[in-house]
Amino acid sequence: MRAWVLGDPDQIVLTEKPVPAPKRAEVLVRIDAVAICATDLEIIHRGPPAQIEGGLPFNKNFTPGHEYMGTVVALGPGVDEYKIGQRVTVEIHAGCGQCKRCRQGMYTSCHNYGLNYGEVDKGHRANGFTTDGGFAEYAINNINTIIPVGDDMSDEEATLVVTAGTAMYGLTELGGLVAGESVAVLGPGPIGLLGVAVAKSLGANPVFLTGTRDNRLQMGRELGADHVVNVKDEDPVEAIRRLNGGKGIDYVIECSGAPNAINEAARMLNRGGRICLAAFPHEPVEIDVAYLVRNNIYLFGIRGEGKSATHRAEAFMAQKRFDATKIHTHTFPLVDLPTALKYARERIEDAIKVVVKVSDTEYARAAAE
Amino acid sequence: MRAWVLGDPDQIVLTEKPVPAPKRAEVLVRIDAVAICATDLEIIHRGPPAQIEGGLPFNKNFTPGHEYMGTVVALGPGVDEYKIGQRVTVEIHAGCGQCKRCRQGMYTSCHNYGLNYGEVDKGHRANGFTTDGGFAEYAINNINTIIPVGDDMSDEEATLVVTAGTAMYGLTELGGLVAGESVAVLGPGPIGLLGVAVAKSLGANPVFLTGTRDNRLQMGRELGADHVVNVKDEDPVEAIRRLNGGKGIDYVIECSGAPNAINEAARMLNRGGRICLAAFPHEPVEIDVAYLVRNNIYLFGIRGEGKSATHRAEAFMAQKRFDATKIHTHTFPLVDLPTALKYARERIEDAIKVVVKVSDTEYARAAAE
Amino acid sequence: MRAWVLGDPDQIVLTEKPVPAPKRAEVLVRIDAVAICATDLEIIHRGPPAQIEGGLPFNKNFTPGHEYMGTVVALGPGVDEYKIGQRVTVEIHAGCGQCKRCRQGMYTSCHNYGLNYGEVDKGHRANGFTTDGGFAEYAINNINTIIPVGDDMSDEEATLVVTAGTAMYGLTELGGLVAGESVAVLGPGPIGLLGVAVAKSLGANPVFLTGTRDNRLQMGRELGADHVVNVKDEDPVEAIRRLNGGKGIDYVIECSGAPNAINEAARMLNRGGRICLAAFPHEPVEIDVAYLVRNNIYLFGIRGEGKSATHRAEAFMAQKRFDATKIHTHTFPLVDLPTALKYARERIEDAIKVVVKVSDTEYARAAAE
Amino acid sequence: MRAWVLGDPDQIVLTEKPVPAPKRAEVLVRIDAVAICATDLEIIHRGPPAQIEGGLPFNKNFTPGHEYMGTVVALGPGVDEYKIGQRVTVEIHAGCGQCKRCRQGMYTSCHNYGLNYGEVDKGHRANGFTTDGGFAEYAINNINTIIPVGDDMSDEEATLVVTAGTAMYGLTELGGLVAGESVAVLGPGPIGLLGVAVAKSLGANPVFLTGTRDNRLQMGRELGADHVVNVKDEDPVEAIRRLNGGKGIDYVIECSGAPNAINEAARMLNRGGRICLAAFPHEPVEIDVAYLVRNNIYLFGIRGEGKSATHRAEAFMAQKRFDATKIHTHTFPLVDLPTALKYARERIEDAIKVVVKVSDTEYARAAAE
Repeated sequence: MRAWVLGDPDQIVLTEKPVPAPKRAEVLVRIDAVAICATDLEIIHRGPPAQIEGGLPFNKNFTPGHEYMGTVVALGPGVDEYKIGQRVTVEIHAGCGQCKRCRQGMYTSCHNYGLNYGEVDKGHRANGFTTDGGFAEYAINNINTIIPVGDDMSDEEATLVVTAGTAMYGLTELGGLVAGESVAVLGPGPIGLLGVAVAKSLGANPVFLTGTRDNRLQMGRELGADHVVNVKDEDPVEAIRRLNGGKGIDYVIECSGAPNAINEAARMLNRGGRICLAAFPHEPVEIDVAYLVRNNIYLFGIRGEGKSATHRAEAFMAQKRFDATKIHTHTFPLVDLPTALKYARERIEDAIKVVVKVSDTEYARAAAE
Repeated sequence: MRAWVLGDPDQIVLTEKPVPAPKRAEVLVRIDAVAICATDLEIIHRGPPAQIEGGLPFNKNFTPGHEYMGTVVALGPGVDEYKIGQRVTVEIHAGCGQCKRCRQGMYTSCHNYGLNYGEVDKGHRANGFTTDGGFAEYAINNINTIIPVGDDMSDEEATLVVTAGTAMYGLTELGGLVAGESVAVLGPGPIGLLGVAVAKSLGANPVFLTGTRDNRLQMGRELGADHVVNVKDEDPVEAIRRLNGGKGIDYVIECSGAPNAINEAARMLNRGGRICLAAFPHEPVEIDVAYLVRNNIYLFGIRGEGKSATHRAEAFMAQKRFDATKIHTHTFPLVDLPTALKYARERIEDAIKVVVKVSDTEYARAAAE
Repeated sequence: MRAWVLGDPDQIVLTEKPVPAPKRAEVLVRIDAVAICATDLEIIHRGPPAQIEGGLPFNKNFTPGHEYMGTVVALGPGVDEYKIGQRVTVEIHAGCGQCKRCRQGMYTSCHNYGLNYGEVDKGHRANGFTTDGGFAEYAINNINTIIPVGDDMSDEEATLVVTAGTAMYGLTELGGLVAGESVAVLGPGPIGLLGVAVAKSLGANPVFLTGTRDNRLQMGRELGADHVVNVKDEDPVEAIRRLNGGKGIDYVIECSGAPNAINEAARMLNRGGRICLAAFPHEPVEIDVAYLVRNNIYLFGIRGEGKSATHRAEAFMAQKRFDATKIHTHTFPLVDLPTALKYARERIEDAIKVVVKVSDTEYARAAAE
Repeated sequence: MRAWVLGDPDQIVLTEKPVPAPKRAEVLVRIDAVAICATDLEIIHRGPPAQIEGGLPFNKNFTPGHEYMGTVVALGPGVDEYKIGQRVTVEIHAGCGQCKRCRQGMYTSCHNYGLNYGEVDKGHRANGFTTDGGFAEYAINNINTIIPVGDDMSDEEATLVVTAGTAMYGLTELGGLVAGESVAVLGPGPIGLLGVAVAKSLGANPVFLTGTRDNRLQMGRELGADHVVNVKDEDPVEAIRRLNGGKGIDYVIECSGAPNAINEAARMLNRGGRICLAAFPHEPVEIDVAYLVRNNIYLFGIRGEGKSATHRAEAFMAQKRFDATKIHTHTFPLVDLPTALKYARERIEDAIKVVVKVSDTEYARAAAE
C-alpha cells in the first residue's frame, strides 16, 4: 500500500509499505478520509511523542495521522463486533487493559503508553502517535478504537468525530451534566468550536466563546455559542461576568493555550467552578494558585478522548444535533498531503479542518499496479 | 500435574493434566493454598455457570476453585509486572478489555463473560468459573487477577483476600466513604464477617451484624462489630433502629440470602440509604418496592470483586487492620479435597473457611513421579 | 384568597384563606396554572403522606397541588434572587438544609421530611405534600423550589417542567451520560412520556417505550421514541432484545408500576445495566433477586426531582429540544377543579395532563370582592 | 463575656461583649479550647477575608478563631439535634443552603460566602472568618458546623478535628478510596502531618512526607509516614520515584505552598494522577501546564473542610486510629492569647499547634464579676 512516512523534521515522504494484517481484537481499515490535526503537524516537526520521550532517533518509517475514517476490510481472529464493509471512524487510544488506569477505565492515561513494540509489547496503541496512523491506504485498529458511522454521515464529517469526542471528554470530566449551566470555551480552534457545539448539545446555556478572529467567532455562533467575545475588543473576564451575572460561570474549557488563559478562566468562574485544559502553552506560565485554592477551583488536564466520549459525540452527530462540517474548510487527495499540511499549518484561506481523501480511483489504480 | 476435575454432579475426581503454559499477559501460579467457597460447592453440584447458561453438557474435565494463592513460577511473553518466585494471591475476574463494561472499568460485568474458548475467544477469564481454577497444582492467571502478598501474610490468610475484596467491592459501590457512618451486615457467612472487618477498617461506626448463630455473631464482634443481633431473639429492624437512633442507618450489606432480607434492610435504613446485595435467595421473593421508592433507596447487586477492591482489601490486611484468619477453621491437604468439601458443605465442627494446602512434599513427590 | 382544601376522602372544597406572607428565603407566587398529577388524586383520596405516616387525622384545611407555575408577587426578607413580576415554575422539595442528606445535596431524601410545623419546624417543605400547594390563588415557595421560565414558554408548558425534571433526575441517577446508550422506558404515563423526551434530548439512542395503549405509544414516538412495543402484542423483553441486539440494553426507567416490571426490566438489560424506579406497585411483588445480583444490576428508587434536575429539564425545554405540551390534553379554570380532577382520574377523552388555570379575570373578580 | 477582638493590624484586644443568643438552627457553645491556625495569624494581620474582598474598613470588633471546641449551653428554637451539656467540636463553614453549590452539597463553595449581615443576610457563616469565632468565652454555631465528641477525646485533641477534616476533605476530592494507593504529602505543617495520618487511616500505602525540618519529618513518621524525604538532602521527585518505583505515585496532597510544589507534585505522579492543593504561594508561580495536560493530571484546589469530611476525620480519631495530639505542642490560658499567638507565629520552641484553654475557674470568675 502507499503510505506517507516521516522524513527529516518537517518532511513527509510517500512510500510503499506492506498492508498490515489484523491480529486478535484488531481490524484492518481501508482509509477513506483523514483530517489534519495540529498534533500531526507537531509530530511531523518533532517526531512521535513516545520516541521523543524515550530519546530514540527520529523515526523515519512512521506514518502519522489519527483523525481518519474508512471501511473495515479485514477482521482479526475472533473479531465479530464489526463486519467487513462496515463504515467506521476511529479514536486514538487503545489502552493495554492491564495497568491500574486501564482497569479503572482511564485508558487514555494507560501506564503502558507507547509500549507496543517488541519485547515490551503491552498492547497499548495510540493511532498515529505510537503506532502507524492514517496517512496511508490502510491502518490497523484495535476494536476499542472503532466507532461505527451511518451512511448519512459523510466521510468528512466522520473524520471530525474524534475532535468532538475530545470536547465531550472534557465536558465529561467537568461533570457532564451541564444542561442549563454556563460554559465558556476559550479559543476557537477545532476542539474549541466543536466544544461549543457539544456543550450546546448537552443543553449548556449560555455558552460563551472567546477568541481573536471574528470569522472564527462567527463560526462559533453558528455552532451554538450564545455570546462571543473578541479578546482584542474587550476583556474576556469582564465581558463574561457582565453577560452572565456577577457570580461568574460554572465551567471553562480552555482550548487556546494562551499564557494567561488559566488565570482568566479562574476569574470567569464562580466559587467551585471547574476548568478543563484541552490545550496548553509550551513554556511554563505564571499561575495565580492562591486564587484557585481560595475559590475551590478544580483543573482537569485532559489528553485525548477517554471514557468512550467519542461514542457520545458520534451519537449527537448522528442525530444531527450540530453540523461539525462547518469547521471543514478544505479537501485534498491523499497524494497531495504536503499541500494539505501546508494549508493547515499556515491557515491558508482561513483553513480550519483540512481533510485528505483517498478515492476509489486511487484504490483501483493502486490495485492495478 | 495433579488436578481435581468435575465428575458427575456432586462428584470430584483427582486426575492428571498437563501443566498449562502462560500466554501474553498471563503467569503460571504454583498453588500453595485454596479456600473453599460456597460457590465452589454449587459448581461441583451443578457445573460451571457458563456451561449451564449456554446449555452445554456438564463439563467433566473442568477444575473448579477460585480462592487460591501461591507462587509465580512462569511468565507469559512480555510480562514484567511480576517475578518468578513472587508470592501472590488471586482474584477471579479478568475482563475481555474490549466490551463497553470493561472500557468503563466494570470488568466483573464483562459483556464477553465466559467467552474464552475456541473461535469466540474474547479473553474473558473467571478463575474456577469459566476457566480452570485452583484445586490443582498449577493454574494460569491473567495478570489482572494477581495481587502480590508479603511474607508476613500466611498462605491461609492470603486465600481470604478475595473474600475481603468482595466485601470491599460492596462498600465501594455503596459510596466507599463510610467513616463514621452506620452499616449493618446481614448474615455472618465469610463475606458478611469480613464485611464487618472491612467496614470497620474504613472507619464505619457503628457496625451491626445480624444472624442466627451466636458463635458466628461472637466472631463478628471479634472482627469489629459494635453490636450484634440474633434474629431468633429479637426483630433485627427494631433492634437496629433502637440501637442506632430512630432515623435508621446509612448502609446495609446483605449477605444472608434470606427471603425477607431486602425488606428488612430497607426498613433499617434512613431515607436515601443504600443496600448492597452480596447474596440472594434462589427463588423469587416478595419485595415491597413502594417502600424502596418512597424512601429513595438504591440497591446494588454485586457479582464478585470489581474495581480493584481486592487490592484495597489486601492493603488493609497487610497493614494488620483486621485478622481475617479468624474465619479460617480447618485445613486439609489437597489430596483430601473431598473431605474438605464435606466439612465446608455440612459445616462440620462449625466450619467456616476450610482451606486445602499443597505442601512442598507433595510437589516433590509429584516431581519424582 | 380562594383555595381548594381537602374535605372528606375524595372530596375537595373551595374556601377562603388569608394570602400567606413569605418569610426568609421564600417568595409568594401568584398561581397562573397547575397541572394535575396522579399523586394529587391520591392525596385527595387518602390525605397528605406526612399526615398518614404520622397517624394524624385527615387534614381538612390542606391545599394540595404541586405542579404549578405563576408570577412572583412578593419577596421574603433578604431575597434578591428573584424579582417581583418574574414568571416562574416550581419544583416540590425544599430540604431542611441541616440533615445529613441535605448536606450531601440529596434534599429530596431530607431526614426532616414533613417537619415544618410548630415546635419541630426544621424548614423542610414539600409543596402540596406537606405544605400548602397550588390549587389556590397564591402559594409560598422556598426559593430552592423556584425555576425561572422565559416568556416564550406557555403557562401550560411551564407546569410540566417538574414532570420532565423527575425523568431527568432518574436519568441523572442512572449516570446521566446516556448519549448513544440504549434506554427503555416502561409505561407511557406523563413521567414515562417525558422520560422518552428527556432521554432523547440527552442523546440516548435507541430509546424504547413499552405500554398497552397504542395512542400513548404513538405520542411517545412523537416525543422521540425510536421503537415502541405494545406489550399486548408482544413480549417486551424479547422485542427489545431483538431490536437492540442480543446483549441487552443499558438502562431502564420503570414508570409503569406493573407487578412484573422489575423482572422484565432486568431481563432487558445487559450485565451491569441499571434500572430507575420512578413508579411502583402498591403491593409487594415477587422479584428475581438472583438475576439482579448475578448480572450486577443496580436499582435506583427515586422520589421526586432531586439534584437540580428540574433546572436541567427546563434548560432543554427552553431550548425547544422537545415539546412537552404534547402530553397536555385538557384545560379547565381553577373553579372547575373537581371536573379537572375527574378528567384526570377517569382519563376521560384520553386525558393525560389536565391543567387548571387562574385567569386575570378571576384575580380581578377576587380583588373586587 | 470576655472576647478578643481585632485591633490595629497585628493587634488583638481583650474586651467584653454580650453573650449572643442562638437563633433557628443554631446553638451557643461555651468554649473550652481553641487551637491557633496560620489563617488566624493572617486575619489578625490583615483582617477577615470578606472584609478585605468587600473593601470594608478593618473590622475592630471582630473575634477570630475557628479551631475551637466546647460545650453546648443553649439551643436555638427548634433545635433537638444536640443537647445542653454535650461536648462538641466545630467546623468552619455553614452554607446558605440556597445557592447552587449548597444545593449540590458543596457548602464550602457557597455562593453567598460572607453574606450574613444586615439586609443581605443569606445565612452563610464561616466561624472566625465572616462571623465571630472562638477566641472568646462563647460562640454561636449553626448546627451544620457541630460535631459531637466523646468523653475520651481530650479538649486539645478535639480542637484538631477540623485540621484532620481538611486533610480528609482533600483525600475525599482525590477519590477517597486510597487503600493500597501511594500518596505523597508535601509540607509537614499541621494539615500535612494530619494528612499523613488520615491517608494512612484510609489504608494508603506507601505514604511519603517531604519537608525541610527533620523533627517535623520524624513526627510524620510517628503519624504513619512510610518514608520521609528532607528536600534539603535530596531531590524529592527523584527520591519518591525511586522509593515507589518508576511509574510514579497516585496522589499528592500539597501542603507546603512552595513556589515549585505543583511542578514537583506533577513529576512525582504517574499518568492520571491527582493533586490536592491545600496550601498555596501568595504570589503567582510558574507552572508547567503542558506536563499536567500531557499526563492527564487533575488539580483540586480546596478551601476548608467540605463534604462532611470532619465527621469522617472525627470517626477515625474517636476510634484511635491515629494520635492527633502529637502535633499539639503548647497550651496557654485564653487570657494569654497574645503569647500563644507569638509562639505560633514565631514557632517558638518548635511550636506546631498551640492551644488556648478557658478553664472553669475563668468561667467562675467571669460569672462572679
